[in-house]
Amino acid sequence: MPAELIRVPMADPGDAPDIRSVLPADVAADRVRAVIVKSEGNGCVNDFSRSLASMAWGRQIPDAVTVVSGGTEGILSPHATLVADVDERPGGQGDLVVGVGTTRRLGWTELGREAQALTVADAVGKICAQLGVVGADVVFVLVKCPLLTTSRIAWAKDDGEQVSTADTYESMAVSRAASALGVGYALGEFDARRLGDGLAGDLDVWSAAASASAGAELDCCKVAVLARKPDCGGTLRATSVVMRDAIDAEPVLAAVTGIHEAGGEVCQVFAKADPDPTGQVRGRRHTMFTDSDIHSTRHARAAVGGLLAGLIGDPMIYVSGGAEHQGPPGGGPVILIWEPRDVTSQT
Amino acid sequence: MPAELIRVPMADPGDAPDIRSVLPADVAADRVRAVIVKSEGNGCVNDFSRSLASMAWGRQIPDAVTVVSGGTEGILSPHATLVADVDERPGGQGDLVVGVGTTRRLGWTELGREAQALTVADAVGKICAQLGVVGADVVFVLVKCPLLTTSRIAWAKDDGEQVSTADTYESMAVSRAASALGVGYALGEFDARRLGDGLAGDLDVWSAAASASAGAELDCCKVAVLARKPDCGGTLRATSVVMRDAIDAEPVLAAVTGIHEAGGEVCQVFAKADPDPTGQVRGRRHTMFTDSDIHSTRHARAAVGGLLAGLIGDPMIYVSGGAEHQGPPGGGPVILIWEPRDVTSQT
Amino acid sequence: MPAELIRVPMADPGDAPDIRSVLPADVAADRVRAVIVKSEGNGCVNDFSRSLASMAWGRQIPDAVTVVSGGTEGILSPHATLVADVDERPGGQGDLVVGVGTTRRLGWTELGREAQALTVADAVGKICAQLGVVGADVVFVLVKCPLLTTSRIAWAKDDGEQVSTADTYESMAVSRAASALGVGYALGEFDARRLGDGLAGDLDVWSAAASASAGAELDCCKVAVLARKPDCGGTLRATSVVMRDAIDAEPVLAAVTGIHEAGGEVCQVFAKADPDPTGQVRGRRHTMFTDSDIHSTRHARAAVGGLLAGLIGDPMIYVSGGAEHQGPPGGGPVILIWEPRDVTSQT
Amino acid sequence: MPAELIRVPMADPGDAPDIRSVLPADVAADRVRAVIVKSEGNGCVNDFSRSLASMAWGRQIPDAVTVVSGGTEGILSPHATLVADVDERPGGQGDLVVGVGTTRRLGWTELGREAQALTVADAVGKICAQLGVVGADVVFVLVKCPLLTTSRIAWAKDDGEQVSTADTYESMAVSRAASALGVGYALGEFDARRLGDGLAGDLDVWSAAASASAGAELDCCKVAVLARKPDCGGTLRATSVVMRDAIDAEPVLAAVTGIHEAGGEVCQVFAKADPDPTGQVRGRRHTMFTDSDIHSTRHARAAVGGLLAGLIGDPMIYVSGGAEHQGPPGGGPVILIWEPRDVTSQT
Repeated sequence: MPAELIRVPMADPGDAPDIRSVLPADVAADRVRAVIVKSEGNGCVNDFSRSLASMAWGRQIPDAVTVVSGGTEGILSPHATLVADVDERPGGQGDLVVGVGTTRRLGWTELGREAQALTVADAVGKICAQLGVVGADVVFVLVKCPLLTTSRIAWAKDDGEQVSTADTYESMAVSRAASALGVGYALGEFDARRLGDGLAGDLDVWSAAASASAGAELDCCKVAVLARKPDCGGTLRATSVVMRDAIDAEPVLAAVTGIHEAGGEVCQVFAKADPDPTGQVRGRRHTMFTDSDIHSTRHARAAVGGLLAGLIGDPMIYVSGGAEHQGPPGGGPVILIWEPRDVTSQT
Repeated sequence: MPAELIRVPMADPGDAPDIRSVLPADVAADRVRAVIVKSEGNGCVNDFSRSLASMAWGRQIPDAVTVVSGGTEGILSPHATLVADVDERPGGQGDLVVGVGTTRRLGWTELGREAQALTVADAVGKICAQLGVVGADVVFVLVKCPLLTTSRIAWAKDDGEQVSTADTYESMAVSRAASALGVGYALGEFDARRLGDGLAGDLDVWSAAASASAGAELDCCKVAVLARKPDCGGTLRATSVVMRDAIDAEPVLAAVTGIHEAGGEVCQVFAKADPDPTGQVRGRRHTMFTDSDIHSTRHARAAVGGLLAGLIGDPMIYVSGGAEHQGPPGGGPVILIWEPRDVTSQT
Repeated sequence: MPAELIRVPMADPGDAPDIRSVLPADVAADRVRAVIVKSEGNGCVNDFSRSLASMAWGRQIPDAVTVVSGGTEGILSPHATLVADVDERPGGQGDLVVGVGTTRRLGWTELGREAQALTVADAVGKICAQLGVVGADVVFVLVKCPLLTTSRIAWAKDDGEQVSTADTYESMAVSRAASALGVGYALGEFDARRLGDGLAGDLDVWSAAASASAGAELDCCKVAVLARKPDCGGTLRATSVVMRDAIDAEPVLAAVTGIHEAGGEVCQVFAKADPDPTGQVRGRRHTMFTDSDIHSTRHARAAVGGLLAGLIGDPMIYVSGGAEHQGPPGGGPVILIWEPRDVTSQT
Repeated sequence: MPAELIRVPMADPGDAPDIRSVLPADVAADRVRAVIVKSEGNGCVNDFSRSLASMAWGRQIPDAVTVVSGGTEGILSPHATLVADVDERPGGQGDLVVGVGTTRRLGWTELGREAQALTVADAVGKICAQLGVVGADVVFVLVKCPLLTTSRIAWAKDDGEQVSTADTYESMAVSRAASALGVGYALGEFDARRLGDGLAGDLDVWSAAASASAGAELDCCKVAVLARKPDCGGTLRATSVVMRDAIDAEPVLAAVTGIHEAGGEVCQVFAKADPDPTGQVRGRRHTMFTDSDIHSTRHARAAVGGLLAGLIGDPMIYVSGGAEHQGPPGGGPVILIWEPRDVTSQT
């Protein structure tokens, strides 16, 4: 059951084109497992473009896991990536497979805490088991997780409970953090002790495969896993690199060059962008944390999006902001999905 | 009289460090001709960081031309570039020279119109004459020009006059446009007929050397010219390229590679970033014009700044937003200032 | 067929509670004619909270006209006002009736022009005829109208046509203007010659009953008319006043006092807020037009919303921004819907 | 030594008109004690309009205490209020006096903590002693206090110290809170135990006279005290009320009515605006905390500014945002300065 990716431009967040019109003939609508959307809201607490996109795609593919990340700052272009299971292709050079899952509903007080991390870890473990892969095979885990709104904070307080933060924007960060730590723990990137350190704020505990984004439009976590499964008869491959900071072009350039040399063609990029927590990039002060008009995650998405779009030559890519424990502090994972096109055609 | 560049990080827009502490021993304070600042405001109408920076540097170097461009979106880092005349260096490999000037005060109704373009052209012509260079020698012309505020529009109206636009943000665009067209006309990049076309809105009339930014903090235009003058005994060189769109990494990568192969080291980059007027980049929709929270020039600066910082490996560069008639529509000129360091040291 | 109003708090723009749970026993769901929503987006071009709210209410009451105005700046509270037809109540002291309609789809080049104004006027005329009222009976006409997006501008251009403005935010203003002028013309507030003057930009041509708001979520105009029809056996009354500028508290205070003295209770307020086009309010400069971070309509909504909420004692009211030709320049109409409660109960 | 107030409109934050041109003949420039500015920045961390205004006025009146509060959202109009000592006027009906002071430089780790509160309290105590008044005589204490920037947080961290918050915007709130608590403690509004409760987060500990605003442009606190001193031979009086929430018009209306009935005329208003910490105003949800585009203090200033400007009939008033421990949660103190004009003229 190899995975296929189909990118669909969206004219607005409610624009989910008829599913049959965008799928190739050999991909069945009921085999679309995940819809990964980059929508054009602010990507922060009151980004209702996410709810709109979820609703629009959910009406068409109710059984798929829909993950919407808001924010197309800079030149990023709004779109959806449909990830489907397809039939095995004899002689297919690709090894990419996909699995998805949804966690139980999380309590508002669990957000940003161990309970959330373990719940996500559990979901990742189950998906891996279903796919028949282990942690080391996994290249990318996308998690959509909840955030705290003023109402949710009040509800928890009415119940005599304490949420992890009373700042709604900050709640996005802690929810992403716990999700990412859960992923890294599930994949064996670090052990339980380091998971604890990470939850306590140690940013040196991170996953090279996790990408978490938070939204007000859900109260559970949605999880999509991309993994390598040799000889699965697929058409796609994945190359993972890690940017060490927001301007770390080298590993991405090297990956692109490698793919081109292998006769391949990049067909999608998934990346995380992070406002460097030190307030500096390579010793130069950035202004993301002192800008009270534009939130830091928006700045990060715009800059990293501009860089990656330039290196790939395409602005219709997935760049999500806020990479706590997703790659090193200030950096983030970059996953290039590519098709070994020439080789295939020669076969 | 070759030119030397000194970059100075700024901790905030009012932070103009003691001039003596930042200049090398062989550069006299009274020979600083221009101060080119990237300050951390919004780069739009109410960007008071520009006034603050102008005031802070002006108190120290009143005779220099101060050009402040607001906006350090993404990872751009606030700083000033001091451009000074220095003594000729025997055997110097560089050819860069600098000249500056200030136009007369412009009437508010002249903004965005032929009068502004011709006034700028006149200033550029005079500076070239003083430097002993012709248009083809010029690599970069930086113009700081006025914009229209609500008060200025009202004053013009009270005088029974018609300003070119009643939208304050739009006034920045028309002022940049007229300035850039004046530069291109002065340098011989196009003739008077095409100047007229450009003023009438034809975006295919553009200069590859102009960089204009508008601000409320002045009522005239300030102009700084960088040009090549062989055998001037300098230390710096300039390489000019033009980005065809906001993700056009190739010419910049080629220029950087060329500089490195020549044993040189990039010491500053000046670039313009433009929200593509078609609403698309390479056929992909961008959202810069429909975002009512963040103006399009801010998006463009963030994205192009991220790309250039990645390609150069340094976020403390000068990227200005809004490139009307400065490079092709959606693209913009990029000027890399570099020092043929190894060669020099071997001499 | 008198009108009844039911206000429903909304927890988020997608929160349309079960219609049966919010309607009183004597109001049938299929007799809800209009849903008038104040949603919590930015109220500008990319306000997707409007689409989300339209979708959420539309699923429940597909036959009602849904008018969503974005923007709850300041203390305004997100909510929907359901306007329904109810049975005549013998001895009812109220005279308020409601009628609704939808225009044909407008071409993008018609926006902001006479075609739009006449189309709206036609719709208003038909609704009045159906209600059996004349222009002088009408107290309030709510129009939801389209705006221009980057895509829509490009489509028109591809067809060789010229839209009224290429600035997406400005397109909201011209669409509101044409709609409001259509209303005033239909109600007989001014004649065809003055309609022409208004379309040409004369702000002294205005309606005291019009309230127009623009959105990307539709391509026609939706119209709701509130009118007085004596002896209709209703429960609600309306008092109309006009604020001369954004701080004109006096007429509103007088209206509230009058209603209280009549034993009535205010149950909803509809108002328009306008950034004064002169750049001043009572000789004091305002900063709405030079603020490049927050658009002027948002400022106006926040300020007028704060004032009206204070005068009424309730922040869950309808205040829409951008009042071109809706009340005098810088001011706007205020419609207080109230119930002559005590009198009724004594009957 | 009674106090006189002179309001000066500002055309931009750097516009400090020649001091002699704005002062009445009987007010000496060297007797201006305080300059209280409402400037047109965002009022948040990166509001450089404050620094610009401080610099502009400081050059003219270096000995005066300059307090700049950023943010003229809604219809608020940028201006400065000069507060000067004037000669006693025989038979003067007013009792208002002014005193000012500046604290020592605060350590960054002291911000938001007891050290800051006690330092402010000490300054208030000294000013009262100099004026010869006690806490109960004081009507208003304006404090300008520092905030934390990314650099300041990093410096503290480098010194192995822990700042009270790592969120730069949040640092404004904790600094205002500690300042306000210091004021209330100094005035005897509550005791040391309640001061401790307040510092621990109890919002029911508040001052009815404190108004604190934070800024990056200083590293100490500046304090201005307005007090009543009967028989001081002045021309101005003050009426203090407290708004219980952001729409509490009644006490303000009553105060205005009282002043008018006494033949007086309001000449300035000082007020604090607060985003209600419960997320609701009178049971209606507000959206100030979930808006990631506009910070909550900006919303509060716009709404309360609109209400007060309407009640007073003048938008050139001082409304500062973020009223932690300044009035009850969600509300704030309102100080009306007025001149018993008619009575005086009859004397």
